[in-house]
Amino acid sequence: MSTIAPPTNPEADPRVQAVFDDIRATRQTDFINNMWRYLAFDPALLEQTWAEVKRVMATPSTLDPLTKELVYITASIINGCSYCVHSHTAAATAKGMTREQHAELLSIIALAAKTNQLATGLQVPVDPAFQKA
Amino acid sequence: MSTIAPPTNPEADPRVQAVFDDIRATRQTDFINNMWRYLAFDPALLEQTWAEVKRVMATPSTLDPLTKELVYITASIINGCSYCVHSHTAAATAKGMTREQHAELLSIIALAAKTNQLATGLQVPVDPAFQKA
Amino acid sequence: MSTIAPPTNPEADPRVQAVFDDIRATRQTDFINNMWRYLAFDPALLEQTWAEVKRVMATPSTLDPLTKELVYITASIINGCSYCVHSHTAAATAKGMTREQHAELLSIIALAAKTNQLATGLQVPVDPAFQKA
Amino acid sequence: MSTIAPPTNPEADPRVQAVFDDIRATRQTDFINNMWRYLAFDPALLEQTWAEVKRVMATPSTLDPLTKELVYITASIINGCSYCVHSHTAAATAKGMTREQHAELLSIIALAAKTNQLATGLQVPVDPAFQKA
Amino acid sequence: MSTIAPPTNPEADPRVQAVFDDIRATRQTDFINNMWRYLAFDPALLEQTWAEVKRVMATPSTLDPLTKELVYITASIINGCSYCVHSHTAAATAKGMTREQHAELLSIIALAAKTNQLATGLQVPVDPAFQKA
Amino acid sequence: MSTIAPPTNPEADPRVQAVFDDIRATRQTDFINNMWRYLAFDPALLEQTWAEVKRVMATPSTLDPLTKELVYITASIINGCSYCVHSHTAAATAKGMTREQHAELLSIIALAAKTNQLATGLQVPVDPAFQKA
Repeated sequence: MSTIAPPTNPEADPRVQAVFDDIRATRQTDFINNMWRYLAFDPALLEQTWAEVKRVMATPSTLDPLTKELVYITASIINGCSYCVHSHTAAATAKGMTREQHAELLSIIALAAKTNQLATGLQVPVDPAFQKA
Repeated sequence: MSTIAPPTNPEADPRVQAVFDDIRATRQTDFINNMWRYLAFDPALLEQTWAEVKRVMATPSTLDPLTKELVYITASIINGCSYCVHSHTAAATAKGMTREQHAELLSIIALAAKTNQLATGLQVPVDPAFQKA
Repeated sequence: MSTIAPPTNPEADPRVQAVFDDIRATRQTDFINNMWRYLAFDPALLEQTWAEVKRVMATPSTLDPLTKELVYITASIINGCSYCVHSHTAAATAKGMTREQHAELLSIIALAAKTNQLATGLQVPVDPAFQKA
Repeated sequence: MSTIAPPTNPEADPRVQAVFDDIRATRQTDFINNMWRYLAFDPALLEQTWAEVKRVMATPSTLDPLTKELVYITASIINGCSYCVHSHTAAATAKGMTREQHAELLSIIALAAKTNQLATGLQVPVDPAFQKA
Repeated sequence: MSTIAPPTNPEADPRVQAVFDDIRATRQTDFINNMWRYLAFDPALLEQTWAEVKRVMATPSTLDPLTKELVYITASIINGCSYCVHSHTAAATAKGMTREQHAELLSIIALAAKTNQLATGLQVPVDPAFQKA
Repeated sequence: MSTIAPPTNPEADPRVQAVFDDIRATRQTDFINNMWRYLAFDPALLEQTWAEVKRVMATPSTLDPLTKELVYITASIINGCSYCVHSHTAAATAKGMTREQHAELLSIIALAAKTNQLATGLQVPVDPAFQKA
């Protein structure tokens, strides 16, 4: 299925092991999903990617954890990343997203796609009131 | 700038006037932004679009109004709709989005774009645990 | 505005002149739109692009000329090419697209964007009946 | 495969049954494709989506049914919705699309993608003649 | 899986056979990948597509063969074409792309996706110094 | 034009000044392009973005500087980021990209867009030979 062969025993590399340990500790689970197992083909890329995911998604901030996942799902759907739609829908569900919220999220994404295309099709000029500089 | 000439006096059409009146009443403002002025070139399209925007975005629901706008901004950025990025950033600001939240939102969208491309580039297979049916 | 400086006197190059002459003859107009004036920065790219546009769009075929332009507008909107949305909306209008057809086209594109996102968000599996091989 | 578990007996819900009945009556077939079976996880979203599909795609209008499907296929390909490419190619075939028309449609989409990228790469400015307002 | 049934014995058609022979000769291999087997459903589309691939990708030019494949992988990832990501990653590997180069390529694509979204989200105006005309 | 008002005197903030100083030193120029002036609205986002751009793009690695810019241009075009197309075309030119290479790059991107759409339209199944795991 994939374009690379992931390492069969990734944690034999101490850099990979350190990242996996941190994922397990941060998420409080033994489950390491495929994204990390495949990124392990290049330990530097794995380290950098996890460091950013941890900083942006797993650190208390001005947006709550569920809202962050809703934004991530939205991006993943529109960017057409099937893997990411799955992993972040699962993450949002784990953080409390209800069926009603899931359906509502999809309604907003669908509406945005619609009005985005209408505005692009008409080439509506930006209102001066919306421009800051 | 646009691909159509919007009506010069759109509210001369009673269908357009009814929609504009409802926009003003729903949003409690006299400002009608260009999206609606241009959609007025086709009253039926205007009516249907506003009805859906009102139902999804302006009706109390399981997601709060600011979260909805954050999702809308995300979709608009990734769909590449300049007009919509402007109008929904303005709407989110009106609903209380702070500078810190704006920067954080952009960080999540940027991170999602990054991991979306990595997963697509590696063609990471979906973990069975993420599949529901 | 552009990333290259187009030639100031493009028809001084006989390869460019030949393409421009063919555009004028094929379209029965003296108007050479910017796309061709800018592509003239590289005569080979200009020749190849025009040859394909002429073959696909200006040769009698199994789809009528207006339908072809409606497909082209659709692609241009979704690919987010502002220039192309403008040029092909103008071309469709020249080939008879009415205001009602324009609005209907936008309705279909908007609906498709919506259901495309819903299917991607839900990751709906393809029905076996739809698969040919 | 999917991000949600579709209801195992969707028509036990009378709202779902009413939509499925209307799909069968409108399309004159007993076949309910997966899109609707999965959307049934949220009856309101199912009702709204079907109502719009029926209004836009199954009501006589200024564009003929096959042209509408060609536009829908185009959008689905560029939006990268695998499910939708399958379902609307099947729908177009059912409405009479020949192999030659299918190949020609793909040629136009491919050409549009090409010229869209060229115009974006060069950032060709829009001709004043194309702008309506 | 596919939307068309590819011909079971494509080389029975002499136009298809001529293209397949040229692919084998140009690439010095007996392997004909699925892209060509499926495009064979329409010999004209097959001929035109191969002619362009051969001209652009298999002719000595100002960019070296590996660089060309890196560009092709980039486009395929962002356009969300799973098939193309696979085929061009394989082609790049055959032309000498190392694991380190593959990881670095993905880092650049990921970074570009990130800064592209940031610039779009902020709607950063183009510096006059970057504009050529 | 933009969705935020950039700071009028960004270097009054020592964090911004440090980044701008590093940009000037790394690029050996006094020119700070708008991307950085606008990102300065949030010093943390500015610092993180520049750190990654510097690491990926301005550090000697397995891909040469011009190849990296060609990849960046490709991503920027397909992601539809007008600002980024401009800035990276300028960067590539500064690193030696000739007019012929620019035209050839655009030819590859245009061809890739074309075959990407064809593969998606046909839903060509991935050859087993291309799959690594």
